[in-house]
Amino acid sequence: MTVVQVLGSLPTGRDVVRPDFDAISDALQQPYRHLVVAGSHRASFPDRHHAATICDLLLNQLFPGFFADRETLERSAKPNDVRGLHLALETQIRRALRYAARSAGTASDDIIVQATEHADASIAELPTIQELLAGDVEAAFSNDPSAIDREIIILSYPSIEALAIQRFAHRLYRRGVPLLPRMLTEVAHSRTGIDIHPGAVLGASFFIDHGTGVVIGETATIGDHCVLYQGVTLGAWNPTGRDEHGVLRRGAVNKRHPDLADHVTVYAGATILGGDTCIGHHSIIGGKVWLTESVIPYSVVMMDAPPLRIRSRRVASEST
Amino acid sequence: MTVVQVLGSLPTGRDVVRPDFDAISDALQQPYRHLVVAGSHRASFPDRHHAATICDLLLNQLFPGFFADRETLERSAKPNDVRGLHLALETQIRRALRYAARSAGTASDDIIVQATEHADASIAELPTIQELLAGDVEAAFSNDPSAIDREIIILSYPSIEALAIQRFAHRLYRRGVPLLPRMLTEVAHSRTGIDIHPGAVLGASFFIDHGTGVVIGETATIGDHCVLYQGVTLGAWNPTGRDEHGVLRRGAVNKRHPDLADHVTVYAGATILGGDTCIGHHSIIGGKVWLTESVIPYSVVMMDAPPLRIRSRRVASEST
Amino acid sequence: MTVVQVLGSLPTGRDVVRPDFDAISDALQQPYRHLVVAGSHRASFPDRHHAATICDLLLNQLFPGFFADRETLERSAKPNDVRGLHLALETQIRRALRYAARSAGTASDDIIVQATEHADASIAELPTIQELLAGDVEAAFSNDPSAIDREIIILSYPSIEALAIQRFAHRLYRRGVPLLPRMLTEVAHSRTGIDIHPGAVLGASFFIDHGTGVVIGETATIGDHCVLYQGVTLGAWNPTGRDEHGVLRRGAVNKRHPDLADHVTVYAGATILGGDTCIGHHSIIGGKVWLTESVIPYSVVMMDAPPLRIRSRRVASEST
Repeated sequence: MTVVQVLGSLPTGRDVVRPDFDAISDALQQPYRHLVVAGSHRASFPDRHHAATICDLLLNQLFPGFFADRETLERSAKPNDVRGLHLALETQIRRALRYAARSAGTASDDIIVQATEHADASIAELPTIQELLAGDVEAAFSNDPSAIDREIIILSYPSIEALAIQRFAHRLYRRGVPLLPRMLTEVAHSRTGIDIHPGAVLGASFFIDHGTGVVIGETATIGDHCVLYQGVTLGAWNPTGRDEHGVLRRGAVNKRHPDLADHVTVYAGATILGGDTCIGHHSIIGGKVWLTESVIPYSVVMMDAPPLRIRSRRVASEST
Repeated sequence: MTVVQVLGSLPTGRDVVRPDFDAISDALQQPYRHLVVAGSHRASFPDRHHAATICDLLLNQLFPGFFADRETLERSAKPNDVRGLHLALETQIRRALRYAARSAGTASDDIIVQATEHADASIAELPTIQELLAGDVEAAFSNDPSAIDREIIILSYPSIEALAIQRFAHRLYRRGVPLLPRMLTEVAHSRTGIDIHPGAVLGASFFIDHGTGVVIGETATIGDHCVLYQGVTLGAWNPTGRDEHGVLRRGAVNKRHPDLADHVTVYAGATILGGDTCIGHHSIIGGKVWLTESVIPYSVVMMDAPPLRIRSRRVASEST
Repeated sequence: MTVVQVLGSLPTGRDVVRPDFDAISDALQQPYRHLVVAGSHRASFPDRHHAATICDLLLNQLFPGFFADRETLERSAKPNDVRGLHLALETQIRRALRYAARSAGTASDDIIVQATEHADASIAELPTIQELLAGDVEAAFSNDPSAIDREIIILSYPSIEALAIQRFAHRLYRRGVPLLPRMLTEVAHSRTGIDIHPGAVLGASFFIDHGTGVVIGETATIGDHCVLYQGVTLGAWNPTGRDEHGVLRRGAVNKRHPDLADHVTVYAGATILGGDTCIGHHSIIGGKVWLTESVIPYSVVMMDAPPLRIRSRRVASEST
């Protein structure tokens, strides 16, 4: 491919070349041309900007008066109204369904009706989600000594933002809406450092302290009254990921992440792996523990910390 | 609660139902209605959008010409002027004080005067904060081989953004301003992955390299010339968190995070816990060390790394 | 420095003082005055807002129709056109070069020509970068069981955003463009939690799963078909950082980060350090391994996990 144009020659004989913008632009469009809808709707996918807007409108509905980002609100027609969220959601779900129909080569006649049904159903669950989040706020309040009141938790804790978005995205995921659920949880991941797959099943009264680096995989389940700290991974244990032919088994059918029963606490940096790994209720998993097997209820699992070698720099630094 | 409306019936006999938007909207407002100010001031809390704006205006004042986000600047009336920051700050502090007075059921007569005093005092400390940050830039420059010059540190290092915001938020925290200080440090946490509570006392010439996953708790203190790497936790050690009745002791009165004296370096992924844990000056804490006890000055603490098992895949992969 | 003004006295005799905004503003400008260009161009550095815009325009060019952030697009004159990216890039490179010339005290006659050449060359490489990213998408698809299709990877995986930006920034870094390359990768770091220095040399078909907390240093090199998980550090090993006089050796000449050959997988939380450390091809480095020495091809390196102490809370909680 020629990506430069010769515009002329300098007196020195050197050619004046510039990039051939049109050729480059054309080359860049090529590989994705088959994915782009013909006609006026240039962008056929749900887009990241609107995914972020949905998250903002959602938080504003779930915590009225707490997340009032006026910019965002003024952009949508009826700022304080649940209809604004419904409309944004419906539009992006429609795009996601249209993409999926095109991929599968199926008819897309009733996409508009389906998108409305998905949006309707999700919006109707907002009061339930709000109630769950009130329990999450209480869980944060009863676990975190730095929380003087509940308001600061709603206003600033990454845990609340991540859980609000995941609990909503999880409902879209269960309904089979393509693309959008993960896009929403990745907005939360980007903002909070907490990476919860929309497929994960989260119990009530859940608290994640600090949160940066937390990873909760697609097929993990978490009971009620659980607490996680920063850097905790509930992940896949490699050997279970492929079938006997080495082919990756994809999605929810491949149960590969652990289950936490009720009242489980997992301290910072612990890693729990595997789809058969079940942490019994009322268990405590210590910081940095690496666990790939189940433990019975009321277990306390601590790492036999590697011995520390402590020596003094003083002599060394004085002798130089 | 009824959240759907029947709009009519299809010829098939199936009802046409839509979410009852007004009922949902009303249900969502209910739990927080008591927190919302009556009358025209719909949003009574400091809001996250304005917390982010305060951070942007602050960085622009502390590093003139380095953080010039024209968007942000043009939104405020006098872009390059410290008055713009003062105004934004005063407004949000007023909201925070009004919320606190309402919570405590106390009079709110002098909130406007108080907010102005807090804003005045914080603004008057900007030159001192700027001087501290110049020391932080020097600390980064003398510790990081990838820093070719000081400008790139100011322009791009997450450490500088996190420290600028925390050093400012810490002054609001010490003056007892509610809500806002933590909201500001959570803006920094979201942008940088560095989570420093506004209560933490940071010494001069502080450098945090890379920074993602760093957690520094409310009652931690850090001396001068300290260096931390990514993933370091200065956290609470669980047993100290509750009194004899199991009740959480909240805020600064519960000293639960460690102290680092001057010239302490803590390498990536190390965890230091507990309010009685003091790291003596000129000490080095190695990567991934887990430390819950004090060490004397000039200590070098290394983990006796767990032995590695190294085997070859080759035979296995060749025999299949 | 006087930073307060006495405006008058109250009947009580107490002075009414306000911050002297002009004095504070002036004080804050002072330390950087020598860095600011005289005349109309107030901000002489590439700025963070425009660095973020370049990242958005870049992603939109590399994945047409996938990252369509209409806001961003409408701000630039020719949204869907590679010329918009070229213009934004040229402007910021010009600023970076002007700063560097001023620092070095060299003439800045041909800065406009140089900036155009750098921008031209980078734009001309977009098709190559796009091809590399198609390989990165395939690598994600073949390694991640939660990826149902390739589209969701492009639309939401932090790995793709971080790699797109680093692969582009790396080309600017190699051409010697000051400041801007690191500013671009720090935009990616802020958004994704993945911190890859623009100097790092990345092979084809690279996948980073989850990604939060990943650090890849300036002089690291990574072969083809490598996979990293969250929290992996490819870092510097302290002793190599300084020369015999204790002076930091800066930049690419100081080889201080490891090399990964082709087909290397590094699991979550592993740390590999040192400029002489080479991981042979087809090796697997287990989770949380701490490695400062080379291993031969086809190695499997696992940590002899510290033994776990598992006890039951039940008796304890029943006996109280």
